[in-house]
Amino acid sequence: MLLNELGEFGFIERFSEKYFHKPLKDGFLGIGDDCAVLPEDAKRETLVSTDLLIENVHFIKDEIGGFQLGKKSLAVNLSDLAASGAEPCASFLSLGLPKNTSVEFMDEFFKGYAFLSEKYNCPLLGGDTTKSPENLVINVTVLGKAKKNAKKLRSMAKPGDVICVTGVLGNSAAGLEFLLNKNLKRDENARYLIDYHHNPQPRVLEGMFLASLEGVNAMTDISDGISSDLKHIMKLSQVSAVIETDKLPISKELEENSNFGYTQKRQFALSGGEDYELLLTVDIKKFAAVNEAYFKKFGKKLYQIGTIKNGFSDEIFFTENMFLTNGFDHFSA
Amino acid sequence: MLLNELGEFGFIERFSEKYFHKPLKDGFLGIGDDCAVLPEDAKRETLVSTDLLIENVHFIKDEIGGFQLGKKSLAVNLSDLAASGAEPCASFLSLGLPKNTSVEFMDEFFKGYAFLSEKYNCPLLGGDTTKSPENLVINVTVLGKAKKNAKKLRSMAKPGDVICVTGVLGNSAAGLEFLLNKNLKRDENARYLIDYHHNPQPRVLEGMFLASLEGVNAMTDISDGISSDLKHIMKLSQVSAVIETDKLPISKELEENSNFGYTQKRQFALSGGEDYELLLTVDIKKFAAVNEAYFKKFGKKLYQIGTIKNGFSDEIFFTENMFLTNGFDHFSA
Repeated sequence: MLLNELGEFGFIERFSEKYFHKPLKDGFLGIGDDCAVLPEDAKRETLVSTDLLIENVHFIKDEIGGFQLGKKSLAVNLSDLAASGAEPCASFLSLGLPKNTSVEFMDEFFKGYAFLSEKYNCPLLGGDTTKSPENLVINVTVLGKAKKNAKKLRSMAKPGDVICVTGVLGNSAAGLEFLLNKNLKRDENARYLIDYHHNPQPRVLEGMFLASLEGVNAMTDISDGISSDLKHIMKLSQVSAVIETDKLPISKELEENSNFGYTQKRQFALSGGEDYELLLTVDIKKFAAVNEAYFKKFGKKLYQIGTIKNGFSDEIFFTENMFLTNGFDHFSA
Repeated sequence: MLLNELGEFGFIERFSEKYFHKPLKDGFLGIGDDCAVLPEDAKRETLVSTDLLIENVHFIKDEIGGFQLGKKSLAVNLSDLAASGAEPCASFLSLGLPKNTSVEFMDEFFKGYAFLSEKYNCPLLGGDTTKSPENLVINVTVLGKAKKNAKKLRSMAKPGDVICVTGVLGNSAAGLEFLLNKNLKRDENARYLIDYHHNPQPRVLEGMFLASLEGVNAMTDISDGISSDLKHIMKLSQVSAVIETDKLPISKELEENSNFGYTQKRQFALSGGEDYELLLTVDIKKFAAVNEAYFKKFGKKLYQIGTIKNGFSDEIFFTENMFLTNGFDHFSA
């Protein structure tokens, strides 16, 4: 049997249940959330996440350039820490480098990596370098700290919670469409969307702040698209969800783009992925206070896009019916 | 400029000094040793290491098989924790999987990984899976714990120290020679050496025990070959070293192999790499006691192979002069 018959999440489920079924020690949390959790002492926990990026799967080297690639490699990992509300404390970088990699490209790569590393006080403490026969391979592991019981998990959503996101959705997927479809003209608007795809902003400070507020229940980051990421929350919290499709935050730049229709823009927003905004559920009674505190701190509001409902469902209910793909799956894509 | 003009260690030095030059916070230790160190509380530290393995660079899939590959992927990382004397506590696994990977192969892979994970109480707590265009890509990150100030570093060697290793050297490199050179006949002896190459034994318990003994100063694991790994100790401890070439521990199986001459066997032992034994330096006054305690615990003795000398030198002095390669360098190989 080949892997694409299983699918990415089927693969993870199969192997984690089959070979790593032993209960973990008290305070540990393993496979299944944005970060794993290791207890540290009575007051703090260590959170860990790791992401693998491979050339021509996750990025096209000549399109993204060294600086943005270095920055994005760390950003997508910091986004996982943000999703748990953790403060970054260290990163580890493994590089598989093809023969034809230039020192100049890697100079730019490290400039970008160091830029974000300094911005979030997350020093690079180690790694591994090796040659690679074909494609540039990048693996980053990040460690963060959170106060005991302050972390936010996918399993913490409650019926009645407001579902919201920290920013506009779909720009990154629309940008990727321009990279993949050479027939589309790259005007200024297209370049804006492509830049959005190459420049994810991990919501590190937002995640830490939101995790500290009473009323914020579950949290995750939007890496595969809401239609996939929200399902993880639904499954682990054993709830269902209604998304008000007309409330999905779409940027002016995407809305104005005439290459894509109304439905395709919503599809980008729902299942395009790589937005790296935070998706969170908030106690409806506390939502006004949370939104106000968030606005005071960051000068922007949360986008309210739906509601958590009682009882588990494996499908999201959308107020507007439209053909929706299922979020990004690495093995069937 | 291409990377092979810099070399692997030139690359690491260049980028770590150029972009990650800021002093770390108190108690942190970054790039340059087997593990990075993060302070935890007044009593304990977290140690972290990561290793990237790529198909056709680090292994030939059909030669090693799934089970041994899974085991080796974790083993080479546990070996880094062992080198610092840390107790393993968690691992993270990233996989880049080509389309043609079978579920059966990955079943075997996970069986091997889980086998070692259970043996050393080092649960798999997370990871990432993605497709890979060409080669199977495996990145493992391990976390371990050590008592504050109990860890052993490459920088701790002292003039007069005895240099010793925990096991025979060169078997793995000889096994690799059989894999790469199809003209060599694979008799029983060859299969023993190949199996040695595929089945590294991380010296986890040995490392933890040795780190607890008074008199053990510096420690590292032998992944690139003594002629490279000892130089890291020399540089970071600012010392020099004499190796008594005739005392290098060579297994009966390698010594009896008629495909290789006397000098080539010593070259395997010195610069072949992937032995994953521990290389340590011990205060000469404490060496007898250390060796006795080690024998009592593990039923085997340390092999004494040389002496640490005063003053830094960037070349190792060998009592027998022979042509020696420099240990494995990923970019010039």
